[in-house]
Amino acid sequence: MEYRRVKDQEIYDDLSQKDVESLSGRTLSSANTSGLSSAGGAKGKSSWKLKSVVTLALTLLTSSQAILIVWSKRAGKYEYSVTTANFSVEALKCLLSLAALFRTWNRHGVTDDNRLTTSFDEVGVYPIPAVLYMVKNLLQYYIFAYVDAPAYQILKNLNIISTGVLYRIILKKKLSEIQWAAFVLLCAGCTTAQLNPSSDHVLQTPIQGWMMAIVMALLSGFAGVYTEAIIKKRPSRNINVQNFWLYIFGVIFNLVAICVQDYDAVMNKGFFHGYSFITVLMILNHALSGIAVSMVMKYADNIVKVYSTSVAMLLTAVVSVFLFSFHLSLAFFLGSTVVSVSVYLHSVGKLQPQK
Amino acid sequence: MEYRRVKDQEIYDDLSQKDVESLSGRTLSSANTSGLSSAGGAKGKSSWKLKSVVTLALTLLTSSQAILIVWSKRAGKYEYSVTTANFSVEALKCLLSLAALFRTWNRHGVTDDNRLTTSFDEVGVYPIPAVLYMVKNLLQYYIFAYVDAPAYQILKNLNIISTGVLYRIILKKKLSEIQWAAFVLLCAGCTTAQLNPSSDHVLQTPIQGWMMAIVMALLSGFAGVYTEAIIKKRPSRNINVQNFWLYIFGVIFNLVAICVQDYDAVMNKGFFHGYSFITVLMILNHALSGIAVSMVMKYADNIVKVYSTSVAMLLTAVVSVFLFSFHLSLAFFLGSTVVSVSVYLHSVGKLQPQK
Repeated sequence: MEYRRVKDQEIYDDLSQKDVESLSGRTLSSANTSGLSSAGGAKGKSSWKLKSVVTLALTLLTSSQAILIVWSKRAGKYEYSVTTANFSVEALKCLLSLAALFRTWNRHGVTDDNRLTTSFDEVGVYPIPAVLYMVKNLLQYYIFAYVDAPAYQILKNLNIISTGVLYRIILKKKLSEIQWAAFVLLCAGCTTAQLNPSSDHVLQTPIQGWMMAIVMALLSGFAGVYTEAIIKKRPSRNINVQNFWLYIFGVIFNLVAICVQDYDAVMNKGFFHGYSFITVLMILNHALSGIAVSMVMKYADNIVKVYSTSVAMLLTAVVSVFLFSFHLSLAFFLGSTVVSVSVYLHSVGKLQPQK
Repeated sequence: MEYRRVKDQEIYDDLSQKDVESLSGRTLSSANTSGLSSAGGAKGKSSWKLKSVVTLALTLLTSSQAILIVWSKRAGKYEYSVTTANFSVEALKCLLSLAALFRTWNRHGVTDDNRLTTSFDEVGVYPIPAVLYMVKNLLQYYIFAYVDAPAYQILKNLNIISTGVLYRIILKKKLSEIQWAAFVLLCAGCTTAQLNPSSDHVLQTPIQGWMMAIVMALLSGFAGVYTEAIIKKRPSRNINVQNFWLYIFGVIFNLVAICVQDYDAVMNKGFFHGYSFITVLMILNHALSGIAVSMVMKYADNIVKVYSTSVAMLLTAVVSVFLFSFHLSLAFFLGSTVVSVSVYLHSVGKLQPQK
């Protein structure tokens, strides 16, 4: 399936327009491209604005995520049940999507694009990313048995490569040679920025840690790219309807996970046992981040998502200077420089005639 | 003066041809460009071969230079007189140039291009790089009073930036935006590759160390770019004649330096006091490196020189694994990746239409 070829709707049309322009090698700056398209200039502008807002939201939410995860841990282990936290995140995302939908219905009435009812043809593929995300989220908590937090941060950069490769294979979207070079630099730059005197230990990560990290990178990359494919297949469909169906399977699968894994703990200690204020904040953050990711998939793409979360990583480090007296190293400055050049090359790379 | 505009001779013609081709944005691979030019295909090919050989020679000589410098030091200080060593390097370069000239005269006879006699108009500017190089070489030995060897290696990367900027300003040759990005990456990548757990100390380098490092970077960059300008101003002139006149001033200035600085030591202990086998090797290496640098200036340019010496730095590290049980870190792999992408981007960047 080549989702780029479906171009019968407004926002998606506009995104495709950009691809066509970059393919024809016109030297328009990327900031102007959508605004300058002859048909639908105003729409293009609002789409670019939307794209920027969701990208910024994702960047800010992700940068606070790592900080909240550290705070939510007490004495190195989770006091709350991880499965109930994941369930809460999915349920909250469903509720927020429904709330947004009610608002749309009140304002514009129920249309074909924003009705909640669906066909098996539309919804049949929705459980797949939910399963992938669930497995990945569970692994995310358990990988710490094999690697420490700094090593995990470094291994997580494998996501960048897996997303780029799967984006190319599954969505069949081409990146220019410059953009591939930029992607390699993004991975190297992020890793460099996270180097510390003990980073070489990551090379001694046990094989289980490596396997989990690689599986997580592939799951994360595949889930992201597959979600983009699903969401972009029906560009005119209301994003909140798409999100509702995406998240409802997350609710169901996490409910199963609770029964299988934490049934006794939940029955004896209660559903919300061990929750603190920080846990609640973390759940809220994860829910909003999840919605921001869907929005980025709808109005931008997985590559924008990867750049957004990478810049978020740099922001986290800068914020950590104030919160945890974190020390910014020479490696951080060098890595940030490489990431900045990568962002620049990614946007300049669009101007190349693609081969 | 825009030396690129002088294009009445074979090799230089060919180099200019490349610039014209890259300006017109043709997508020829850089390896084929000179060989494919319609006029003088064979000359183009031999020029490209010459360019490759001198670049490779420079890379190999430079990579062994750092190793020899370490070996030539005993107990942290030089036992021999630094000024006599520099004098020997310059004198050896003169002798080697003369030997090459005698061979040319025997084979092809004396022509206008290879005669040793010169005019003030030609030779008047030759002392300038000799003075700059001499000051820089002296500083190179004294900067170690303020910074240790690893910190010096990191500070030396300022050369990359100063050469790029001065190359742009003095030779008025444009680099594409991609090539500038590649240059920033080269600097960041080289620095990253040299990171070690104590690298953050470089940020505590005393102000004298910083000043000397910046002055050295500017001297080195200016001397390099100025030498390229001098050598390329007369493209048909035999390189060995140009080298002879370039180095003879080095001989003279270093003779003055010996009299001013080490007169007593030389008189009391002899000219070659404290020389070891390694010292002789180091002098031989410096002389050959110097000639290789001139060749690169003649047949390539300062940008090629910077890439060549950067790759040499990575080679030195790999060789040091065997010689000094040097440990290759994660930072080295990341930095090498960034340098490799930089080399790639530099060659791809040529294909861009320059603005």
